[in-house]
Amino acid sequence: MAKLKKGKPIILVTNDDDITSKGIRSLVEAVKDLGKVVVVAPEKPQSGMGHAITIGSPLRMNQVDFFGKDVEAWQTSGTPVDCVKLAVDKILHHKPDICLSGINHGANHSINVLYSGTMSAAMEAAIEGIPSIGFSLLDYSFDADFSASKQIVHKIVSAVLSKKTDKHFLLNVNIPIATPDKIKGIKICKQAYAKYEEDFSERIDPHGKKYYWLTGEFKNFDKSKETDVWALQHGYVSVVPVQFDLTNYTLKKQLEKTKLFQ
Amino acid sequence: MAKLKKGKPIILVTNDDDITSKGIRSLVEAVKDLGKVVVVAPEKPQSGMGHAITIGSPLRMNQVDFFGKDVEAWQTSGTPVDCVKLAVDKILHHKPDICLSGINHGANHSINVLYSGTMSAAMEAAIEGIPSIGFSLLDYSFDADFSASKQIVHKIVSAVLSKKTDKHFLLNVNIPIATPDKIKGIKICKQAYAKYEEDFSERIDPHGKKYYWLTGEFKNFDKSKETDVWALQHGYVSVVPVQFDLTNYTLKKQLEKTKLFQ
Repeated sequence: MAKLKKGKPIILVTNDDDITSKGIRSLVEAVKDLGKVVVVAPEKPQSGMGHAITIGSPLRMNQVDFFGKDVEAWQTSGTPVDCVKLAVDKILHHKPDICLSGINHGANHSINVLYSGTMSAAMEAAIEGIPSIGFSLLDYSFDADFSASKQIVHKIVSAVLSKKTDKHFLLNVNIPIATPDKIKGIKICKQAYAKYEEDFSERIDPHGKKYYWLTGEFKNFDKSKETDVWALQHGYVSVVPVQFDLTNYTLKKQLEKTKLFQ
Repeated sequence: MAKLKKGKPIILVTNDDDITSKGIRSLVEAVKDLGKVVVVAPEKPQSGMGHAITIGSPLRMNQVDFFGKDVEAWQTSGTPVDCVKLAVDKILHHKPDICLSGINHGANHSINVLYSGTMSAAMEAAIEGIPSIGFSLLDYSFDADFSASKQIVHKIVSAVLSKKTDKHFLLNVNIPIATPDKIKGIKICKQAYAKYEEDFSERIDPHGKKYYWLTGEFKNFDKSKETDVWALQHGYVSVVPVQFDLTNYTLKKQLEKTKLFQ
């Protein structure tokens, strides 16, 4: 990967919290000695956007100087997935060596990989054939402390850049809230089967009409020690290798055998 | 499933094109003799929303009579995924026996499963433990002909309701544009590795500023005869069994073996 090209690797950085968030700033700081960083990120928060793309309206993009003069940066009106598409097609005009997304303010472990704009941006890059990593810290606060995260990011990105990886290489990295000395290590995991038990908060507006806020309690139904949830609860950084082939091959075999639809 | 409960199965119907589209009307017509149909669908188009959820703003829902007096129907201000969550938590107050999403006006085969609001709604139901099927017709037109689709839907849903399925049972069904006699059959497939080669259309607004429309050409890189794209190109209905565990177990083993991050 990086070794195959002359000069520094091109590192595309994006996120879903928006281009001004502390998380993306921390990500840029963590990797700027590892290559040429180009930031293409949303101008407004896009959390929970999943793999959304903008079809019905046009996109805007503007160059900004939020990361100092060494870092080319663009903010766009699009979703995280749009940002990756714009970066490759209209800004870089070729594929970067790696795409990094985050650092997200909040967890993207287990089933959250599906709702996460952070991970969808990374997945979009992997579909395009760009090795990619999404990073999330388990702290939703605006002013979260990313100092341990920056060390973890640097370690993981350095390691990935040092190897030749598959072009669809994709990792979902979640980092527990802890000081560097309290983090037990980096654990390769599987995605836990965990989900939110929804409980909409029902309210009445000043005109007497009902409205609902989506809320809910996170529940882990997966007791395996192999999962990302287990790793995070036990002080490890979780690394889940991710794929975008969603075929359920076990069910495929069953359906072929039973001939249910013939 | 249906056999385990007294009376008719409860069939939750949703989509992403919006509650007034011809596709959802056709879906309801196709299955209303198979159970009690309840529709909970978006009030406005939500194509390409992927697995987006509404976090930053509240949701509205209103009962409507678009499907006649026998079909309870609600339109919501949310995404397809929000609709499933609202249906289970605020409308049905329990899990339906099956969730059907569509019939989408346009293809959701191959990589489109990730961008598709239709499939994300179905996947959300499967995560919740509701067997679920997304249906799409390869015709994007507003006034698409769903007559063959209705026969296919009836056949597949009848078959699924007749069996005890896994609670996370999830299918992505795509239907070619053809009259019923021209459809060669129903083929169990894997998701093709195919994607869009992006080509943003750049334009200038009346104020002299650039803006971009996302466009692109669909390209199939997967030459296997096992894929949904192959099946559709050869006149078959494609059925891809889908899972929401995105763990790449092959890469997981590799990373554990190489100890890259230790």
